[in-house]
Amino acid sequence: MTHPADQNVPHMDLADFRRHGHQIIDWIADYLEGVQDRPVNSIVQPGEIAGMLPSSMPENGESFESILSDLDRVIMPGLTHWQSPNWFAYFPANASPTSILADVVSSGLGVQGMLWATSPACTEVETRVLDWLADFLGLGDRFLSTGTGGGVIQDTASSAAVCTMLAARDRATSGTQQGLSGHAPSLRAYTSNQAHSSIEKAAGIIGIGRDNLRLIEVDDQYAMCPAALRAAIEEDLAAGHQPFYVSATIGTTASGAFDPLPEILEICRAYGLWFHVDAAMFGTAACCEEFRWIQAGCQEADSYTMNPHKWMLVNFDCNCLWVADRAALIESLSILPEYLRNQATNSGAVIDYRDWQIPLGRRFRSLKLWFVLRQYGVIGIQNMVREHAALTRDLVTWIEEDECFEILAPAPVTLVCFAHRDGDERTQAILDAANASGKVSLSHARLKDRLVIRFSIGQWRTQRSHVESAWKLIQSFSDA
Amino acid sequence: MTHPADQNVPHMDLADFRRHGHQIIDWIADYLEGVQDRPVNSIVQPGEIAGMLPSSMPENGESFESILSDLDRVIMPGLTHWQSPNWFAYFPANASPTSILADVVSSGLGVQGMLWATSPACTEVETRVLDWLADFLGLGDRFLSTGTGGGVIQDTASSAAVCTMLAARDRATSGTQQGLSGHAPSLRAYTSNQAHSSIEKAAGIIGIGRDNLRLIEVDDQYAMCPAALRAAIEEDLAAGHQPFYVSATIGTTASGAFDPLPEILEICRAYGLWFHVDAAMFGTAACCEEFRWIQAGCQEADSYTMNPHKWMLVNFDCNCLWVADRAALIESLSILPEYLRNQATNSGAVIDYRDWQIPLGRRFRSLKLWFVLRQYGVIGIQNMVREHAALTRDLVTWIEEDECFEILAPAPVTLVCFAHRDGDERTQAILDAANASGKVSLSHARLKDRLVIRFSIGQWRTQRSHVESAWKLIQSFSDA
Repeated sequence: MTHPADQNVPHMDLADFRRHGHQIIDWIADYLEGVQDRPVNSIVQPGEIAGMLPSSMPENGESFESILSDLDRVIMPGLTHWQSPNWFAYFPANASPTSILADVVSSGLGVQGMLWATSPACTEVETRVLDWLADFLGLGDRFLSTGTGGGVIQDTASSAAVCTMLAARDRATSGTQQGLSGHAPSLRAYTSNQAHSSIEKAAGIIGIGRDNLRLIEVDDQYAMCPAALRAAIEEDLAAGHQPFYVSATIGTTASGAFDPLPEILEICRAYGLWFHVDAAMFGTAACCEEFRWIQAGCQEADSYTMNPHKWMLVNFDCNCLWVADRAALIESLSILPEYLRNQATNSGAVIDYRDWQIPLGRRFRSLKLWFVLRQYGVIGIQNMVREHAALTRDLVTWIEEDECFEILAPAPVTLVCFAHRDGDERTQAILDAANASGKVSLSHARLKDRLVIRFSIGQWRTQRSHVESAWKLIQSFSDA
Repeated sequence: MTHPADQNVPHMDLADFRRHGHQIIDWIADYLEGVQDRPVNSIVQPGEIAGMLPSSMPENGESFESILSDLDRVIMPGLTHWQSPNWFAYFPANASPTSILADVVSSGLGVQGMLWATSPACTEVETRVLDWLADFLGLGDRFLSTGTGGGVIQDTASSAAVCTMLAARDRATSGTQQGLSGHAPSLRAYTSNQAHSSIEKAAGIIGIGRDNLRLIEVDDQYAMCPAALRAAIEEDLAAGHQPFYVSATIGTTASGAFDPLPEILEICRAYGLWFHVDAAMFGTAACCEEFRWIQAGCQEADSYTMNPHKWMLVNFDCNCLWVADRAALIESLSILPEYLRNQATNSGAVIDYRDWQIPLGRRFRSLKLWFVLRQYGVIGIQNMVREHAALTRDLVTWIEEDECFEILAPAPVTLVCFAHRDGDERTQAILDAANASGKVSLSHARLKDRLVIRFSIGQWRTQRSHVESAWKLIQSFSDA
């Protein structure tokens, strides 16, 4: 006996799922085949896409075909194409074919990794693969799960900042249970004035207050000045504040600068501060011996984070966070209500990653990291880094050869910041013209109060021809 | 001229992507076809899956075929099958075929929705579809984007709790900038002792301290007692504390209880407290007229959250959060560094969802919500709710007819909590035997210090036969 209602829920049957699934895969392949010819930036006006959508949801279900056709009609005009090889804006957000397919598996399995017990493979692949990656990047033994540390996948480096600042806060106070109101001195955190905005956001979220994050001045290469850090800490101690956390950056957002980790480490040790390393963008480079210098010293940090979803061919979201003392993280984030208790957790023999992050639920994200690291291997990823770095050296040479432009920050990896010598107005005009052309996407920053074009190389399909065309395009607007 | 290195990065070419993509889709279809015959819970021991993985990443890339074969060999034994129709544990985490395919599109496009400008469709579809859903669930006009409110997709209800408690904290203090140390009275939040652990976790994260979340007692139906809430607030005020936030639950985790929203609303208004409604699990039911009562009063709340990734056929992660005053949320979460400035943001005419969440980056998650709401329509989703509710009524009847068991909490929707009359030891033995059989997955809770079996109906492929078999299995262990 079946309930009559059984027939009234229009689940797609599995034969249709196969058929439509193949359609979707082909649609994506077609998209990726043609994306380099599309205008990179969307040019729709605010409200234009929403205006193509009905004001309420349909009463009766629609066919999959009609939904699919709206992808081309409604969605496509409203996309800015991060997977275009002409993408040089913000950061590379590489969705390699391998990672896309791994993500399909994760979506299809639909398992939850909140506890080890709710799908052991989801946890154990993650732990193992993050150990692989720690080794690949030269993070040293302290971050391995085989000791007191370990790695975890977070959505973004912003969340990694919150979780580590939280663990540091609670190590410095009794924040988790009692809160900060009863804690008299203000907690003070430190990062450079070139650090990512997520550090300041984290300070607001965990309740120490954004004003208690001090933005330390940088040198002429935009790297944090250790002497200024030490002075700020001393000043704060003298004023009765309580320093507790420093975040150093491996590849700042504006110009890709590298903070001097060894000197900062020494200061953190002297004052007993949690030392976090934000290598979201350029951590990937450390897999090559010739770039390993960028993070010398990080091996002694308390936490380290980098984003495979930027430059390591894993599609968003996949941030990796390692901590040297996992107990500190878990102490701040664990709650064990009765309904989540289970034998494996009680045994203490397993990791429950819900205790390493803000959310409870979690997807099987380690699959895509596992797939990508295996498909490319050590050498494949190193070659990609070297290829992009070589393209960057070419670009630097071309810019240096053009007397109209000047490069305003060191560009040892894949980010070049440059400006027209005539000043901001001219630089802005070139940037606007380039973006309006549809042929590239570029973003900007300000360095020492000058507007610069940020030319970020690293999209997975970018080749020399794309960089060369983009540079000639920029030059053409300079000549205009 | 191409760089020699071009050839050394083993990207999967698009022809192979098509071929392997079809393989993966078929692999998932096969998995879904056969999943009901697999033992529902994984029986591996801690370390067993990790033991099948090499200790370091491969030097040279591996073939996709070899990775794919490891899905069956390594991953499958370590899975607990949330997509089995015999899944009655925790909550339904429905990955409908439609949502899986939409998620594939999102992975394939690989766009970032951090700013409106970085892919306008990603933002505008989200805003529109959350307006649809607010209407579908009867949330009222205050939560619509067309007024002062609006909806946003978060990863989970845990993050929604953090974001709303944060906005409430900052409305009550100057928390974002100055932090809590300078704020003398302790902030106090309230929820019932049956609320989800994420509320307590949020209190720790935002720095008010877990001890400053008061767990209010419940009535014999496990719903919050308004009188007890009022008394707690009065007591706290008398002690010099500062009440600021109440979270009420629509479907508590342990037993699916409904807090009395109208009475709680009245108290929140009287004392000027932020009123959050956590409808993570049972919000979906409100799409049916006969269940709309569960959230009468939520229309006047400050925030409301529910999870399409639980019972609304959208695969994880997709939590929806609505706020009545989006300015309060944005005030707590917005930072605008130079490198994210753009014309559209400056114009004020667009939503930048990065200001509505903890992370900066974001996937195109609204696609899967859009696909599912369209493919099923109003009627399709209502029918699913009604079908699952009917199955639940059947189960309730069967349990009531068996004198060995008793139901320990009201079960008006899809969660039934029951125990053997002989007591905890007997109930535990039955639960263990059922889970060990591989034929079902069930979880547990404690209600009034009694162990109960939580039988949660709602997996998208569960039909009457599955519920009936599961019940007979339970009975068989009771007779043993």
